[in-house]
Amino acid sequence: MSRADRVQDRLAEAGADALLVTDLVNVGYLTGFTGSSGLCVVGEGLRRFVTDFRYVEQAATQVTGFEPERSPQELFAALADGWPAGGLRLGFEDHKVTVRQRDRLGELLPDGIELVAAGGLVERERAVKDAGELELIAAAAALADEALGELLEPGLASRTERDVALALEAGFRRRGAEPAFPTIVASGAHGALPHAEPRDVAIPPATLVTVDFGARLDGYCSDSTRTYATGPVDAALSELHALVLDAQLAGLAAVRAGPTGAEVDAVAREVITAAGHAEHFGHALGHGVGRDVHEAPRLASTGTDALVAGNVVTVEPGVYVPNLGGVRIEDLVAVTADGARVLNGHAKELLVVG
Amino acid sequence: MSRADRVQDRLAEAGADALLVTDLVNVGYLTGFTGSSGLCVVGEGLRRFVTDFRYVEQAATQVTGFEPERSPQELFAALADGWPAGGLRLGFEDHKVTVRQRDRLGELLPDGIELVAAGGLVERERAVKDAGELELIAAAAALADEALGELLEPGLASRTERDVALALEAGFRRRGAEPAFPTIVASGAHGALPHAEPRDVAIPPATLVTVDFGARLDGYCSDSTRTYATGPVDAALSELHALVLDAQLAGLAAVRAGPTGAEVDAVAREVITAAGHAEHFGHALGHGVGRDVHEAPRLASTGTDALVAGNVVTVEPGVYVPNLGGVRIEDLVAVTADGARVLNGHAKELLVVG
Repeated sequence: MSRADRVQDRLAEAGADALLVTDLVNVGYLTGFTGSSGLCVVGEGLRRFVTDFRYVEQAATQVTGFEPERSPQELFAALADGWPAGGLRLGFEDHKVTVRQRDRLGELLPDGIELVAAGGLVERERAVKDAGELELIAAAAALADEALGELLEPGLASRTERDVALALEAGFRRRGAEPAFPTIVASGAHGALPHAEPRDVAIPPATLVTVDFGARLDGYCSDSTRTYATGPVDAALSELHALVLDAQLAGLAAVRAGPTGAEVDAVAREVITAAGHAEHFGHALGHGVGRDVHEAPRLASTGTDALVAGNVVTVEPGVYVPNLGGVRIEDLVAVTADGARVLNGHAKELLVVG
Repeated sequence: MSRADRVQDRLAEAGADALLVTDLVNVGYLTGFTGSSGLCVVGEGLRRFVTDFRYVEQAATQVTGFEPERSPQELFAALADGWPAGGLRLGFEDHKVTVRQRDRLGELLPDGIELVAAGGLVERERAVKDAGELELIAAAAALADEALGELLEPGLASRTERDVALALEAGFRRRGAEPAFPTIVASGAHGALPHAEPRDVAIPPATLVTVDFGARLDGYCSDSTRTYATGPVDAALSELHALVLDAQLAGLAAVRAGPTGAEVDAVAREVITAAGHAEHFGHALGHGVGRDVHEAPRLASTGTDALVAGNVVTVEPGVYVPNLGGVRIEDLVAVTADGARVLNGHAKELLVVG
């Protein structure tokens, strides 16, 4: 079954006869197209693709299983003509399409086509990766790990947080990838901010440094975090690290097909709560990763979907103590038929990288 | 008059009593806020700002002229309470807000508040830069020029397009900026693609190389293009370069307060058309630059707005001849009270950078 076939099977959920896909990430997922302008329509017996003149040749080599149309207008005219009397309910991606775009689209549509909100159908399919996608994500993770290894060789202390982040991102680029998101390098008390921006501040000796990094390679992302020491640290900090590692290993062990995201989140959170740090773990345990660095499913108290084989999620508990520091440890893990497989590789113990 | 005051003066155009600003670039422009979550409302006697718990302290130091509210719900309740009976017409940014966001917003609103489409009001103000903004754009352009100078020192030939692009972007980053858009480096016949992506291909000797680059510094962008030779080139190519330079100088000379974007576009286009290359100049002459690298006004056949002092636009004619190559030359220019001022600096003659 193709990706488009599986989306077609979801049309009834949304009360739609066909789906107009305009989000470029979703268009790329369904058609293989990598250009910056294109849309497609999926319905029973209906696979149409439109791009603009700049990408016609590129689309001819990339897009399979979809018939090309020359313009949205011709596509919509063909849809209206081809549909039996009674009206075509054309789903659109209401979570991505702006109000103005929807209004203009409405003006373009011939009589007999009705727009219905149907955002998220493609994303639900994207949450379940096939073997090829798993390989691409693993390749992005391996590349990022290799760049991290190179980054750590000269040590972290006395370099600025910003220089460390730029050096890691340059390592991604030299290997043919891009950062999947702005790299986080947070040392000392600044580590207590989960989304700290790297500063022009030298990383001190004998403190903790959290590095949260991911590469985007061939359209797929990785996401991983390690917290290192730049020398011997206070027991309070090394205990924090040990606690987060315990929680991370517990969360990881809970990842498999069956439990909901909320149940997996609870397993790791309980370890941190039992140690009295519940209020210092203020974010979700993890999130899906694929073409976007944040996608379904969520490992969070609101994560009601059961995990299934093919999901790829982060497991990233953190403890952030104001004025002291923070620790986060994150792996990228694929749910498999018989358990789970971690896709990244660096050691998680508290290593000293002077 | 503050930026918010000028937006307030535009509310009647949109049939709105107040404007809900949710686009973060627009929120930043009006309030000074640089965080990643916030919105504001502008109306007569009404300046309110909301962010989430992560940014409350940051907003307290950055946001001036707006009263803080704790949540959108409390903001809307206050709006409904404070408005005389008859209903508040609340403009929203329909060109940025998704259909789903608008629907959720509608559910949040108390009775007595009606949503009306009002996108683009802030962008119209943003098209006219004040002195401080002009300085920021000039600083971004100067930084980008400095990085370009460094890039050219070792020459371009035999490096790959991709390595050259990455080296230039690394130069931006070392200087504290980011690329405003993915750098274009296109050599040889590939120069005939206006939006070519840099390839893992060595730049040959004795050909043309187009470098289109811009930096984003303190929230403002630059944008500039030069085309160099990597050795003595065929007369066909050097004539192409001379033609584009003629067109660029003609376009630049036409930039001042008064003419429409279409009129300025026509001046440069006429030079290229007269040389028989009309069909090889398939894009607009230029576009506004500011917080976004593409904003109002447009120098294009569809540019009906007259230029005014404070506009900052690119002037970037190009000629792209399939299987031969391409030339584009682009400056960033501010419309002033008595003419125009070019904000970037590198020489535009056909230089040989081996």
